[in-house]
Amino acid sequence: MNEPILHRPGGTGGSWANVAVLVYKQDDATSFRDVTRQVLFDDPLLDCQLRYFEVGPGGHSTLERHAHVHAVVVLRGSGQCLVGDTILDLAPHDLVHVPSMTWHQFRASLEEPLGFLCMVSAGRDKPQLPTADELARLRESSVVCEFIRA
Amino acid sequence: MNEPILHRPGGTGGSWANVAVLVYKQDDATSFRDVTRQVLFDDPLLDCQLRYFEVGPGGHSTLERHAHVHAVVVLRGSGQCLVGDTILDLAPHDLVHVPSMTWHQFRASLEEPLGFLCMVSAGRDKPQLPTADELARLRESSVVCEFIRA
Repeated sequence: MNEPILHRPGGTGGSWANVAVLVYKQDDATSFRDVTRQVLFDDPLLDCQLRYFEVGPGGHSTLERHAHVHAVVVLRGSGQCLVGDTILDLAPHDLVHVPSMTWHQFRASLEEPLGFLCMVSAGRDKPQLPTADELARLRESSVVCEFIRA
Repeated sequence: MNEPILHRPGGTGGSWANVAVLVYKQDDATSFRDVTRQVLFDDPLLDCQLRYFEVGPGGHSTLERHAHVHAVVVLRGSGQCLVGDTILDLAPHDLVHVPSMTWHQFRASLEEPLGFLCMVSAGRDKPQLPTADELARLRESSVVCEFIRA
C-alpha cells in the first residue's frame, strides 16, 4: 500500500468501496450471528490492523477472550457489549477498551446494525472460546447469563 | 488501562468526555492553525496509538513527512488532504493511507471542522518539516502550491 488510497463508504451504510467484505459462514455450530468484517488498514509498516465489523440487527459476535486487547470505536447503529462482567450500551463514537484475557461479546440492537472499528496489534494470539465450565461460571451472573443467551 | 472504559462523545461534537483535549499553541512561527488532538487509545499492550484530530473551519495541520505511516478514518465534517502530490476531498468514513516519507497536510473546509481518527505505530520517528528547497519543489505544482498556501 504505497498510494494515498481513498476508500469511500459504499451505498450500503457500513461498507467501503474496494474493501473486501468477509461474511462469516453461519451454521448451528457457530457462536456468532450476522457479522461481517472488513480489514481497512493492514500495512507491514503499521504495527496494528484496523478492522471494521458490522453486526446485523439482532446479531452478535463470538463470545471470546485472548491475550491481545481491542480498541473499539463505534461508527454506526446501536447495541451493547459485554466486557468482563460489565454490559455497556453503545452509540456512535463511543470508545470501548477490551482488556487482555477478558470475555467479550458485541450485540446489535434488534432495530439496527452495530458497526464498529476495532484496532488490534498485528502480531496477536488466537481467540479462546469458553469451555463448558467457564460458560457455567459466566452464567452465574443473571445479567451476563441473559446477555450471552444466544 | 485495565477496565472496559467507555468514553462517550461530549457535547461539543468531536470530543470525548474524560479524554484530554490538547490544543496546539499558535503563534506566527507555527505551521498549523486551529488543531486539537485527543489520544483515544494508548495501551502498552497495543502496538499502535489511536488519536483523534479536529481541525477547525478554515484551519489546517502541519505540512510534514516521516518514516511512519498514517491510517486515517474521517469521522466528521469535511475538508481536503494533500498526500504526496494528490489532493483528496474528505467526507465522513473516508479512509486515507499516508505512505512513508510522503508530504501531507489536512485542511478543514471553511464552513465546518474536519475530524479524523489517525492510527500510528507506537514506536515512530519524529515528523520532518520541509526545508526552503523542499518547499520550493512542492510549489512547482500550482495545485499543491495553492493547497499549502497558508
